[in-house]
Amino acid sequence: MCHTVSVTRARWTSETTPLPPHALAWLSTRIGLGTPLDEVPVTVPESALSEDAFEALEAVAEISLDAGDRLGRAGGLSYLDLIKRRGCGELTIPDAVVLPSSPEEVQEVLRVCVEHDIAVVPFGGGTSVVGGVEALRGGKDAVIALDLARLNRLVSIDPVSRIAVLQAGTTAPDAENLLAEHGFTLGHVPQSFERATIGGFAATRSAGQASSGYGRFEDMVEGVRVQTPAGEWRLGSAPASAAGPDLQQLVIGSEGLFGVITEVALRVRPKPENPVYEGVVVDGWEAGTALIRDLAQRNALADVTRLSDVDETEVALALTGGRKAELLGKYLRFRGVEQPCLVIFGWEGRSRDVTMGATYGHKLVRLGRAMGESWRHGRFNGPRQRDALLDAGVCAETLETATHWSKLPALYDAVRGALKGALGDPVVMCHVSHAYETGASLYFTVLVPRDVEDPVTQWQQAKAAACEAISGIGTITHHHAVGRDHAPYLEAEIGSLGVEVLRALKSTFDPTGILNPGKLM
Amino acid sequence: MCHTVSVTRARWTSETTPLPPHALAWLSTRIGLGTPLDEVPVTVPESALSEDAFEALEAVAEISLDAGDRLGRAGGLSYLDLIKRRGCGELTIPDAVVLPSSPEEVQEVLRVCVEHDIAVVPFGGGTSVVGGVEALRGGKDAVIALDLARLNRLVSIDPVSRIAVLQAGTTAPDAENLLAEHGFTLGHVPQSFERATIGGFAATRSAGQASSGYGRFEDMVEGVRVQTPAGEWRLGSAPASAAGPDLQQLVIGSEGLFGVITEVALRVRPKPENPVYEGVVVDGWEAGTALIRDLAQRNALADVTRLSDVDETEVALALTGGRKAELLGKYLRFRGVEQPCLVIFGWEGRSRDVTMGATYGHKLVRLGRAMGESWRHGRFNGPRQRDALLDAGVCAETLETATHWSKLPALYDAVRGALKGALGDPVVMCHVSHAYETGASLYFTVLVPRDVEDPVTQWQQAKAAACEAISGIGTITHHHAVGRDHAPYLEAEIGSLGVEVLRALKSTFDPTGILNPGKLM
Repeated sequence: MCHTVSVTRARWTSETTPLPPHALAWLSTRIGLGTPLDEVPVTVPESALSEDAFEALEAVAEISLDAGDRLGRAGGLSYLDLIKRRGCGELTIPDAVVLPSSPEEVQEVLRVCVEHDIAVVPFGGGTSVVGGVEALRGGKDAVIALDLARLNRLVSIDPVSRIAVLQAGTTAPDAENLLAEHGFTLGHVPQSFERATIGGFAATRSAGQASSGYGRFEDMVEGVRVQTPAGEWRLGSAPASAAGPDLQQLVIGSEGLFGVITEVALRVRPKPENPVYEGVVVDGWEAGTALIRDLAQRNALADVTRLSDVDETEVALALTGGRKAELLGKYLRFRGVEQPCLVIFGWEGRSRDVTMGATYGHKLVRLGRAMGESWRHGRFNGPRQRDALLDAGVCAETLETATHWSKLPALYDAVRGALKGALGDPVVMCHVSHAYETGASLYFTVLVPRDVEDPVTQWQQAKAAACEAISGIGTITHHHAVGRDHAPYLEAEIGSLGVEVLRALKSTFDPTGILNPGKLM
Repeated sequence: MCHTVSVTRARWTSETTPLPPHALAWLSTRIGLGTPLDEVPVTVPESALSEDAFEALEAVAEISLDAGDRLGRAGGLSYLDLIKRRGCGELTIPDAVVLPSSPEEVQEVLRVCVEHDIAVVPFGGGTSVVGGVEALRGGKDAVIALDLARLNRLVSIDPVSRIAVLQAGTTAPDAENLLAEHGFTLGHVPQSFERATIGGFAATRSAGQASSGYGRFEDMVEGVRVQTPAGEWRLGSAPASAAGPDLQQLVIGSEGLFGVITEVALRVRPKPENPVYEGVVVDGWEAGTALIRDLAQRNALADVTRLSDVDETEVALALTGGRKAELLGKYLRFRGVEQPCLVIFGWEGRSRDVTMGATYGHKLVRLGRAMGESWRHGRFNGPRQRDALLDAGVCAETLETATHWSKLPALYDAVRGALKGALGDPVVMCHVSHAYETGASLYFTVLVPRDVEDPVTQWQQAKAAACEAISGIGTITHHHAVGRDHAPYLEAEIGSLGVEVLRALKSTFDPTGILNPGKLM
């Protein structure tokens, strides 16, 4: 028996932030609004889980076959996921949602799934934008979503070593609240912050908006506990070690293929007081990247450092709204800025004076704290506005990469060229979101009227063009992970031997191949 | 036919730095001098390499069967290695020394060794202190030392991204000279600096004396080129990536078991001008570790930060010599210091002002730059003095570990207790050599009169006691690697699943098991 469910939006995007009128007006002028993609009720098929398997699972953990629960774990938040929920392309819907409440229960669930040969998709916040949590069966008869929402405790905290052990299903806001009770913060704030989980950050090698200051997620991980079909695995006895290869780095970025991360030991820091965010403008993309490179190589990056290119700056300034936008434009012309590139700097705490000093030793136009605060307050809105953009008939997609400084201009040109070639006259905006001594990431946002006939092919062609442009110049992903969408490009990056290594690891941890099929490899 | 070779010392220790008279006098008073272990001529057996294999190797790379050449690659520089060269215990001597001059030649040598089923020990500077380059055969009929000395070029330099590609056989001083021509430095200065190689640093997850400032070796690695029996493997396209697990971390620390590292892309920094080194004294080990922890957690560590415990400080001050030592003692008593712990701070360049400011905000007694410079100038002497200590009948050994801050006192007590329990009344000295936000390393030096009857058992019992004390509190090695000596303790640290992972990787890269048998696992 099939069930028809009318609530089609993903949990997160159901809290849509509407587009302000001046944003709609700007879109209408710049690219034209498309035909809205209407919401349609989704048909949820009968669960394929056998009665035996259901009973065996029910004996070890909470389980739901409810159509709404299952639909809620049907993929993530990529553009493809969003339009699938509106009838374009087929949703992959898990046959059941299993909600264990402890690492031991996770281990038991895996045992049952091996016994009954059921595919398992570990599910955290469901914020993947690369098809990382699609409920693929990989040749098995049924697939469950293993939702870690109930593993949401602070297991322990060591204030001397500044290490907190958090369960994997803890969301980032919950983690921050739990840590704040002890005066600490994790400082990991990707755009998915509101929904994403500790386990998801680890499984995808996440980087956050403040990663210049707090480090990438892997820099914070001091230890992991993982349940695998081959048994439990715990790692992490020291801040650094020379005891062979760093095996923890196999767990971080494993995207649920080798095991289910259930606990993560994390380096925490004292919660900073009075963070300062400022907006500045530099003249031109080249000057902007040179500024960021100089700061990165002098160890003087602000905790948050984000440089927008001319196109993204134009949009950002336009969206500050009417009169204000006009005045800002006038001021920048008065200051002789021909190609404004906006930079947001955020100083959260450590070494603020030094890095601020180094920053303002450069030639730049300060726009003050209001601009910085405005960015800061809106910084998690992007994902919530994507359904609103779909309502306006607009395809909005993001993609990201990274490379060494000397190759950054080539990478920037190649990706922009590929997107423009594939999509006609889209808006392509870019910013440097993360900088390192040796290179930086590039984060692209594309806006284009949705192709009414075949939006799936429109997306696929643009995605393929961008990925091919990236391949050979930079990494296929700097912080979104591989999932299903980037899997075809992984071998070019890690070599055929690299793929063989992943296969050997897969056989070791998950010999019957139940875990997250169709991702990464 | 066997050859008798009379030059028995390892290459490095043949440049022995003699012990100054006041050091001998101090040793004599403190532990008593032992019976010198005389040097004896070593018998080098006939090479077991078959004629076929010799011819096949000769066709692809330079090869030597010379007894002196082979003896020169017979193990590393542990205490066991040194006494083996003086007739205590059996030396493992390779059947040939092969010296390829390019990555392609290395690949060819591996092909020949797979064909002829010959074991291969990759050999860099030969400075392993954990049995990492012992010429074990692992069941094969013959073993070669694959000496990378001729792979010593700077392959390329990218001054914008600040990345240099160096061949693996380049020694650290040669690397610094090559980089200095372009105004750069690597800044990696372990005590093995004078002999150790780039490939060895990568293969062993090395950390240097300035790693607080420059990072551990793995922090500097941007890419690797590895020749494996399964083919060439290249990694490293971006400063950071979320494209699955970080496979580069499998190469770093692989200790020659998976492949031969032939090139390493490294992050370099501008060569600093006018480094400043200072010595200070804090009152007590607890105050000292609290100081280092505070600086580490405030991101204010000097590039070199080294805290000695009371015992090591006593020795260091005693060895400054007669009148000077006396005056120093008086001065510290005048300043009210009851338990002097010496700290060496070295500021090489980046952010010097900040970190100096933070440091001198603490309560400590400054001894000035002369003390810092004196440490700096003698900092590579240790390894060269070990043969001189053997001449004086003294067993000198070092070992190291790391753990999180909250467990550091327990680790310190456990290792000291174990060494004292095993050795009677040795001198046990300790310093914190590397500090992190979440913990630190401990580096122990032991001096004890050599057991005349059975020095091998004396060493083995002390080593086992120390390793068992470490296991469960910290990592079995912070920067010396696993080699042969730490292999029995690896499973306790990485779990049985971790060992299975290493086995699976070994099968993938080196299915016939020719590479560096008997190490790591």
